[in-house]
Amino acid sequence: MKAVRLHEYHRQPTVEEVPEPSAKEPFDVVVKIGGAGVCRTDLHIIEQQWAEKSGVTLPYTIGHENAGWVHEVGSAVSNVEPGDTVILHPTPTCGLCHACRAGDDMHCTNNAFPGIDCDGGMAEYLLTSARACIKLDPATQPADVAALADAGITAYHAVRKAVPLLYPGTVCVVNGAGGLGHIGIQSLRALTATKVVVVDRNAEALKLAEQLGADETVLADGKHVEAVLDLTGGNGAEVVLDFVAEQGAQQDAFAMTRRGGSHFVIGYGGNIDIPTIDIISTERNVVGNLVGTYNDLVELMVLAESGRVTLHTRKYPLDAALDALADLDAGRVRGRAILTP
Amino acid sequence: MKAVRLHEYHRQPTVEEVPEPSAKEPFDVVVKIGGAGVCRTDLHIIEQQWAEKSGVTLPYTIGHENAGWVHEVGSAVSNVEPGDTVILHPTPTCGLCHACRAGDDMHCTNNAFPGIDCDGGMAEYLLTSARACIKLDPATQPADVAALADAGITAYHAVRKAVPLLYPGTVCVVNGAGGLGHIGIQSLRALTATKVVVVDRNAEALKLAEQLGADETVLADGKHVEAVLDLTGGNGAEVVLDFVAEQGAQQDAFAMTRRGGSHFVIGYGGNIDIPTIDIISTERNVVGNLVGTYNDLVELMVLAESGRVTLHTRKYPLDAALDALADLDAGRVRGRAILTP
Amino acid sequence: MKAVRLHEYHRQPTVEEVPEPSAKEPFDVVVKIGGAGVCRTDLHIIEQQWAEKSGVTLPYTIGHENAGWVHEVGSAVSNVEPGDTVILHPTPTCGLCHACRAGDDMHCTNNAFPGIDCDGGMAEYLLTSARACIKLDPATQPADVAALADAGITAYHAVRKAVPLLYPGTVCVVNGAGGLGHIGIQSLRALTATKVVVVDRNAEALKLAEQLGADETVLADGKHVEAVLDLTGGNGAEVVLDFVAEQGAQQDAFAMTRRGGSHFVIGYGGNIDIPTIDIISTERNVVGNLVGTYNDLVELMVLAESGRVTLHTRKYPLDAALDALADLDAGRVRGRAILTP
Amino acid sequence: MKAVRLHEYHRQPTVEEVPEPSAKEPFDVVVKIGGAGVCRTDLHIIEQQWAEKSGVTLPYTIGHENAGWVHEVGSAVSNVEPGDTVILHPTPTCGLCHACRAGDDMHCTNNAFPGIDCDGGMAEYLLTSARACIKLDPATQPADVAALADAGITAYHAVRKAVPLLYPGTVCVVNGAGGLGHIGIQSLRALTATKVVVVDRNAEALKLAEQLGADETVLADGKHVEAVLDLTGGNGAEVVLDFVAEQGAQQDAFAMTRRGGSHFVIGYGGNIDIPTIDIISTERNVVGNLVGTYNDLVELMVLAESGRVTLHTRKYPLDAALDALADLDAGRVRGRAILTP
Repeated sequence: MKAVRLHEYHRQPTVEEVPEPSAKEPFDVVVKIGGAGVCRTDLHIIEQQWAEKSGVTLPYTIGHENAGWVHEVGSAVSNVEPGDTVILHPTPTCGLCHACRAGDDMHCTNNAFPGIDCDGGMAEYLLTSARACIKLDPATQPADVAALADAGITAYHAVRKAVPLLYPGTVCVVNGAGGLGHIGIQSLRALTATKVVVVDRNAEALKLAEQLGADETVLADGKHVEAVLDLTGGNGAEVVLDFVAEQGAQQDAFAMTRRGGSHFVIGYGGNIDIPTIDIISTERNVVGNLVGTYNDLVELMVLAESGRVTLHTRKYPLDAALDALADLDAGRVRGRAILTP
Repeated sequence: MKAVRLHEYHRQPTVEEVPEPSAKEPFDVVVKIGGAGVCRTDLHIIEQQWAEKSGVTLPYTIGHENAGWVHEVGSAVSNVEPGDTVILHPTPTCGLCHACRAGDDMHCTNNAFPGIDCDGGMAEYLLTSARACIKLDPATQPADVAALADAGITAYHAVRKAVPLLYPGTVCVVNGAGGLGHIGIQSLRALTATKVVVVDRNAEALKLAEQLGADETVLADGKHVEAVLDLTGGNGAEVVLDFVAEQGAQQDAFAMTRRGGSHFVIGYGGNIDIPTIDIISTERNVVGNLVGTYNDLVELMVLAESGRVTLHTRKYPLDAALDALADLDAGRVRGRAILTP
Repeated sequence: MKAVRLHEYHRQPTVEEVPEPSAKEPFDVVVKIGGAGVCRTDLHIIEQQWAEKSGVTLPYTIGHENAGWVHEVGSAVSNVEPGDTVILHPTPTCGLCHACRAGDDMHCTNNAFPGIDCDGGMAEYLLTSARACIKLDPATQPADVAALADAGITAYHAVRKAVPLLYPGTVCVVNGAGGLGHIGIQSLRALTATKVVVVDRNAEALKLAEQLGADETVLADGKHVEAVLDLTGGNGAEVVLDFVAEQGAQQDAFAMTRRGGSHFVIGYGGNIDIPTIDIISTERNVVGNLVGTYNDLVELMVLAESGRVTLHTRKYPLDAALDALADLDAGRVRGRAILTP
Repeated sequence: MKAVRLHEYHRQPTVEEVPEPSAKEPFDVVVKIGGAGVCRTDLHIIEQQWAEKSGVTLPYTIGHENAGWVHEVGSAVSNVEPGDTVILHPTPTCGLCHACRAGDDMHCTNNAFPGIDCDGGMAEYLLTSARACIKLDPATQPADVAALADAGITAYHAVRKAVPLLYPGTVCVVNGAGGLGHIGIQSLRALTATKVVVVDRNAEALKLAEQLGADETVLADGKHVEAVLDLTGGNGAEVVLDFVAEQGAQQDAFAMTRRGGSHFVIGYGGNIDIPTIDIISTERNVVGNLVGTYNDLVELMVLAESGRVTLHTRKYPLDAALDALADLDAGRVRGRAILTP
């Protein structure tokens, strides 16, 4: 089968032939890929930012945002069968460790992260496990929803954690209205009545944000922290969802929080650098966010199937994977780029 | 009356005569001070660290940790009367703003912080309000409990917020076993069954920590982060209560947290500087803490009156306030220094 | 001034002249009534259901759902001034007890409940306290929002407590789409993405429910429990908000909950009678609800001012109070009846 | 092997020979039983109270509270191996349904409940699954801890849910100090600083309760509701953990709760019958409780291994199972009866 393989850091991957995977263990599931999302993390992988953390051995197949159809199942799989349309939780989990038993899939001590630390889904077939599969309405086109498998779940997980802080009368800043941010805006609209203020340096992204339900938009032009403070009576926001967190955006994001507020870090790249006296004198928080739980993705699919979360995608054939990566790197993708069979 | 007044930053305060306060507004309460705690924040005030944040005008009376007996009450006060033994919540609040209506006294938008931004309790009498008074058993000696009014409530508030994270099987690191830390250890013992690991660079402080119920102690000798990781199977702790947060201790504290863990910042002085990729790849949090609610102090007094939290104090007469400040600065105080009438 | 006074249980109140109240205590506020809601509880008061619980002495003025304009304030009032448009939290509170300090206004140990246990708002003027006043946009017509002061806050408080249970994919049954229920439906729409199923025995009420955002409606015709089970795959609902709770509706409501589900009792009149084996074998809950907090009403006013919660009211002049009570009793009021000056 | 088999309702089970189970499915685990608890529910099973709910076919082996040593494992089992000492979560779960993915093991839609709806552990061997096994220190004697597998987890689960309600200054009533109650008392002591008031009609049970840390004990002599109200200043308790819930004890338990309080139903047998006006006028709750999660049992084993929860047991050989059942029925067992090999 064809797969997008990374052979060397700081060089482009290649699209090449590799053997098809098969279901050997009782809980193995092989999925025929219908859509594989292209993510900024793929660029960071190529740039070697994840090499040490993932410990992956090159060459391997990237692609950690996948949906498709079940192709083959192991002997003990009971929740899906060949032909089922599925979206895949990004981290197949053991189901036995403390985190799994608490529902915290992303903290499974024995999980894999296909596309990060083993072969991923920018290929014709992907080997995953029964515990990663969420069965969808057969009418669903995998390419239409694949972006929910990583961008979607990550944005939704952060919103879900923020909901108790976002009662009516509060303000939530969405910092960055790209692939994740535009799902975050819609999730906020579905789950809260908070006032949504979107900050981005791209005017077109702000226009899309308004269509998706943003109450206010602010161009990130250097005066945006001040603008957010002005919009909040000088106080700042109860929550800032920071989908950027690099190139200084993370410092601005913290500066936009109010007394008792929380800076949710979702993007990455920069450093958070804050005097502890500022943290304690206002009792503010910095909150980490990582992917999401299996049930987070189940819930998000409910929002998607009822039309409350819609995706803006641009499709590329698998063979054009390098074009998609290049377009993303150059800022030419609105919404999310998706590889299709 | 006598009062400890700060006339100039970076110079010692003086003990001098000032007029006695009186109850003019309906909710005013004048308290005869029975005990006024001496806190590291008093040193930081003298060093001008709080000047900009507090906006206080010099000269003024310091002392933000107070207990005593009600001396005079305003026309509308119904919860205490002259002669009552009271401990004082550090921030008299308005009772009308959103934070007050949610029970978040420390975020009252109209509060005062006597000893920080107006005249405090290192004096014979203090002007406060009905909403700051907690009535105690008349047998209580104010000097014995005064340290709970700020050191105590601050440590307890952080522990109270951490309780849901500290189920049996977890580890909580107490970073710093001084005035606040030794109350934190006892509060953890009273409210949780977590394993308490105490880190301090003073061996004597660690001995006291053991007597108060620490499960493990670690000398902060440069290898302490490694030692904590060893004690936790290489994982780190679910919660680190950082009562130091200066001189690099804040970086060590974050390094001691485990995947999904939380670094509670309570002390201050240093900067938190963390790559966002470390925050998101492990979903860790930095949690601000500021004093506590009125009900936090009520609860802490229940623990104190039942003997579950005891204080280690060293008493000085009000006239010897400068000796107390000097002893604290030189690291010669175990537990808490208290000024008495 | 004119007031609607109850002189004897089981007899109609009378509209008669009584002296105007005045602001004597520092926190007193006298409000000129612009709208006073007529509630089923007023009928229950007349029927003597509340006599023992309230301990009120007859005669007195009824009316516990009030909005208007500040007329006179006591010496220490700082949050409102004469002329301000206000809606009133139904229970003026002390601000000093444990419940007040936790934000649980409805459990204040020293509160009054004007219209229940002392003179209420079916009159030209009402005596209340500063802590009951929520200042509104001066453009607001009190008669348009008065119903939020009791019906609204009660429905919203229950919804607010249920939010953590109502993630996407869940079902919430609204049992009874009258004065409270129609606010409950809109609050659910604003704060959750749950599927809202409305049950009522009145087809017109169900039609209104659909317009307000109900996903499904079920006529309470004796087969409604079965119908709800059918709509939920035989499982029942995560939450049933029971705005009726009399004449057997409370038993049906519990029967509509699923394993692990919760029956929120908001209406009253009947008895809950359940075998404990049914409670424990499915781990279901019965949850009491009483009015709401001051901040609940603040939040609801945010929803109202942004148009996310709208009221269906029918206005009567104060002189026609008995007509309004009669219409309510006879089931002739859709939404809420409001007395106006 | 030998097993305690129920052939007919309302007749005693018999101890007889049946075939040994074997591990056929990938996740099957066969455990050699080291201790099987005898529970009041076993009596209720014989009395046919569970027949309809469980749908079990007679004859079958009872015993739902088990610990022992792993004897044989299926092909995909990775968390335990033959020879391991284990305690068993009572409900082997699927690991795939929504409840399992949220950590709510007791609500698994595909679970079994050995001893209730299929063959249980009053036998030499038990067939269970990998997901039910908790590996213990090999020094642990299964018969010493078996009672934690059902009585323990059930009491602990209820306490764990109540912890957020039981801050210092509150009161928790333990209604019934038998097999479950005496674990409840110790769990409360380990996890909270609440005041523990124990009610039982047996004076000896109250003496044991005091040794385990009860602050107050009350003999259930008909005046016990009044006695609890007296002990709480006439207010009642924030939480009543009702381990009895039959013969009117459930009505007394509700009557002991305070305004805003919660009646946790854990025992069963009687009916809860409460006017809804009492529920809403005080905002009180009735909370169902069923067994507990896998992680609840893991946490409880931490408390047991550190000596914070100890069991009072009386051991009987498997052959004397009928004696154990008879002693329990006659009220002759203090703590818990355990069958041993």
